[in-house]
Amino acid sequence: MANNILKGKRGIIFGALNDKSIAWKVAELAHAEGAEFVLTNAPIAMRMGQIKELAEKTNSQIIPADATSDEDISNLIDQSMEILGGKIDFVLHSIGMSPNVRKGKHYTEVNYKFYSQSLDISATSLHKILSIAMKKDAISEWGSVLALTYIAAQRIFPDYNDMADAKSLLESISRSFGYHYGIKNKVRINTISQSPTPTTAGEGIKGFDEFVSFSDKMSPLGNASAEACAEYCISMFSDYTRYVTMQNLFHDGGFSSTGVTQEVIDKFTEE
Amino acid sequence: MANNILKGKRGIIFGALNDKSIAWKVAELAHAEGAEFVLTNAPIAMRMGQIKELAEKTNSQIIPADATSDEDISNLIDQSMEILGGKIDFVLHSIGMSPNVRKGKHYTEVNYKFYSQSLDISATSLHKILSIAMKKDAISEWGSVLALTYIAAQRIFPDYNDMADAKSLLESISRSFGYHYGIKNKVRINTISQSPTPTTAGEGIKGFDEFVSFSDKMSPLGNASAEACAEYCISMFSDYTRYVTMQNLFHDGGFSSTGVTQEVIDKFTEE
Amino acid sequence: MANNILKGKRGIIFGALNDKSIAWKVAELAHAEGAEFVLTNAPIAMRMGQIKELAEKTNSQIIPADATSDEDISNLIDQSMEILGGKIDFVLHSIGMSPNVRKGKHYTEVNYKFYSQSLDISATSLHKILSIAMKKDAISEWGSVLALTYIAAQRIFPDYNDMADAKSLLESISRSFGYHYGIKNKVRINTISQSPTPTTAGEGIKGFDEFVSFSDKMSPLGNASAEACAEYCISMFSDYTRYVTMQNLFHDGGFSSTGVTQEVIDKFTEE
Amino acid sequence: MANNILKGKRGIIFGALNDKSIAWKVAELAHAEGAEFVLTNAPIAMRMGQIKELAEKTNSQIIPADATSDEDISNLIDQSMEILGGKIDFVLHSIGMSPNVRKGKHYTEVNYKFYSQSLDISATSLHKILSIAMKKDAISEWGSVLALTYIAAQRIFPDYNDMADAKSLLESISRSFGYHYGIKNKVRINTISQSPTPTTAGEGIKGFDEFVSFSDKMSPLGNASAEACAEYCISMFSDYTRYVTMQNLFHDGGFSSTGVTQEVIDKFTEE
Repeated sequence: MANNILKGKRGIIFGALNDKSIAWKVAELAHAEGAEFVLTNAPIAMRMGQIKELAEKTNSQIIPADATSDEDISNLIDQSMEILGGKIDFVLHSIGMSPNVRKGKHYTEVNYKFYSQSLDISATSLHKILSIAMKKDAISEWGSVLALTYIAAQRIFPDYNDMADAKSLLESISRSFGYHYGIKNKVRINTISQSPTPTTAGEGIKGFDEFVSFSDKMSPLGNASAEACAEYCISMFSDYTRYVTMQNLFHDGGFSSTGVTQEVIDKFTEE
Repeated sequence: MANNILKGKRGIIFGALNDKSIAWKVAELAHAEGAEFVLTNAPIAMRMGQIKELAEKTNSQIIPADATSDEDISNLIDQSMEILGGKIDFVLHSIGMSPNVRKGKHYTEVNYKFYSQSLDISATSLHKILSIAMKKDAISEWGSVLALTYIAAQRIFPDYNDMADAKSLLESISRSFGYHYGIKNKVRINTISQSPTPTTAGEGIKGFDEFVSFSDKMSPLGNASAEACAEYCISMFSDYTRYVTMQNLFHDGGFSSTGVTQEVIDKFTEE
Repeated sequence: MANNILKGKRGIIFGALNDKSIAWKVAELAHAEGAEFVLTNAPIAMRMGQIKELAEKTNSQIIPADATSDEDISNLIDQSMEILGGKIDFVLHSIGMSPNVRKGKHYTEVNYKFYSQSLDISATSLHKILSIAMKKDAISEWGSVLALTYIAAQRIFPDYNDMADAKSLLESISRSFGYHYGIKNKVRINTISQSPTPTTAGEGIKGFDEFVSFSDKMSPLGNASAEACAEYCISMFSDYTRYVTMQNLFHDGGFSSTGVTQEVIDKFTEE
Repeated sequence: MANNILKGKRGIIFGALNDKSIAWKVAELAHAEGAEFVLTNAPIAMRMGQIKELAEKTNSQIIPADATSDEDISNLIDQSMEILGGKIDFVLHSIGMSPNVRKGKHYTEVNYKFYSQSLDISATSLHKILSIAMKKDAISEWGSVLALTYIAAQRIFPDYNDMADAKSLLESISRSFGYHYGIKNKVRINTISQSPTPTTAGEGIKGFDEFVSFSDKMSPLGNASAEACAEYCISMFSDYTRYVTMQNLFHDGGFSSTGVTQEVIDKFTEE
């Protein structure tokens, strides 16, 4: 696919770690569709990742930034506008991390310092990006901001742990800021609630493979892949979707509207 | 349980067929809680059921009525007010029937005459009851109307067939009429979305047992029983809940807010 | 806008009446984006409309069909595949009519024959189209079906009358059929919940102008126009959105996620 | 009203400040319904409030506790079980505070230290209470936990500021913990989404009076009062509602399901 639907658009893409990342796929496709953008990730994530390879492929620059640091975000936005030669048209927020998940803390016994970090990194970071961008008037009219989320914000998946709360907060921030930025400058802000995706982040979660399999069997179209998610993100960055804002958009092969499938119910048939 | 919380209240209860029916349990408990009411069911259902036994136990009268017939409903309401000595304080709509399910028609190949009957019996009947009651000014201020529904109105359960569409319509009618009757006379109208319940109606559905088992394992508190549903209905008829209206209330042990449970995911563990 | 994103795609567009119709705008833009399609409308609507002008502009043929008639739909689908030379890739259902609204019946006092017609024309018609298409295996893998709806399916707008119930039913049919057609042939089915749009249909509703003004002031981006809706439909027909199914998608400038705006609250400031 | 429906139940009530507080009304009614409970509030709030008067009226003891302090909560739970002579059957969480609102910071320019405090006080406090209670096995089987919330968690009301995000987080915590505590010990956890209520907390919000008036006119039954909210809380603490869990329950006179009312639309009629 490549129809030049992002021609002339300038973006910032957070969260590309390696070629399994959704953000990586978004960058590749945005490039193919004519966009120019800056790649960014936390300094620590960049050491682990292959982001330089992506930068070369997409002819883009990398600006390291800790998304919880006002200073880093401020610098990122300034530099991005300078490099890209104007205001930003799209932003992808694909950032999430829970120290409680990493350290194996059960949801009912989280460490509250970690909990606060989960919220700060995975959700409040979006608020900071938008707040600083607004102060700098850095996003174009009809600009499009997307954050990636998961249905655990609505329904509990026990191993998803405190990321469920972080995603609920993230979705709320999208709505709240979507209101204000919409009124001020017609900037639209949405979240995409994606099928579980075997990225490096997902792999950290206990029982992730069984979970991906359950989700696939509960989705009439099957789980959406990272590539398909990138395609959807591109459509949401494009001018075809300008009046969609403050929404949480399920990109999940129908999972969210499915109560049960025959394949799943069959597992409950008495032997 | 019996705290007299419906003391002095007058009601009409649709849909008690036998002692597995939710409506039957509601009648028993409403009686214990001090209410007086009229029982009604379709003439054909009454021949099959043991409703007379219930009438004796609860000291109530039976008025047969086809809930799709304006004339029958009109007569039912008139007689109920006469028997009970005043306006109606609560109504339970527990009516649902799909000829397509009965005849084994697949959802994608329904008979449209049957489809129309499913809607008419299971959903439009509520509109008729309310419309006729409103014309007669038959429901007291702060009166409470409940209709029983199922989460298939929001998420697809394939064997539930066209009853999903009928329940969606029923919930919409509750909201729509709840608006008008609320403004006019402070009557409140809600639906209760109940766990799958092994009533005579449920038993007609293909694969129902596996389905009940799946639902039970997907509900942190387990499936809610018919008795528990009756308790909830009583609370919704009482004066404790007067400002709840136009809502769809899940009474399902947490099913609706659960994405997956450990018990279910275990079935997807590779052997 | 025109990036050829529907190149090679074949469609059927229901409901273009005149150049205010959303379906009209969809046809124009689908043509510009490289699609070929058949236009259809009820014979009676065609007499009133200027659909021939649209057919000429978009180099497409017109096949009259009453969307409640199995025979007409069957003929429409057969002819469309013949004219377009293959299976159908997209369908737009933009059909709605309430005799109760037209005749000025209040929601609480609807005529039930009319009510049934509202449901039949505005909602069940979608089921028929899909059922017949499925029997004929007329929709391509990853084909996209859209039906236009309104937020009255979730929240009551009193003058919208029984169309609220019809739209709830329509959305339920989309989910239900989306499940089955997704599993069978990866066809995706969604509804777009659009801002109130000053089309000929909308104009029939009492107090429509005030209502459009209220909605506009309650939407951070303002009401979405028919043109913008067409753009969004095109994105949903394209390959960018293949894993979105069984969803109700708000295209409303943020109305659905807005509780109140400053502009609206100002009207409640005491003088 | 007083039917003894909480007879023998033991509770902890957070957040009674003065006789406008919902928590105050809950305490009065819980007492009338036969419950025994402990009252608690932040030490600083207690200095401002008249909570001693309430304690006398309801024959209950006061234990000051900062709901963000593990130590205070631990002490509160231990003492409560000792005073009441057994495990806790119900908990009311009526705690919310935003330093950003107090200091007049606009949502788009919040102070992030304050933001973190808003989340910590208004939402994470519930997690802490539940986590510590679970460790101590302090809540009875079928115990009921309620937290008060507001529809700003779903739809934006601009002056509600970062409390919208805090309430989203609070609702997510209720669902997440409701899952785990339900499975472990059949404890149920819900939020009640109440009409805007002229409490001391509400009064701090800019434009609150206009807002209450708008809400009242948008609610078919009018705004729910603090007294009515207390009645609803009592029903949710009682045994009538045991299978309701992980839900957000609107107690709002129909506001949440109303798109517009005639009274509101009239304000948009052109003069």
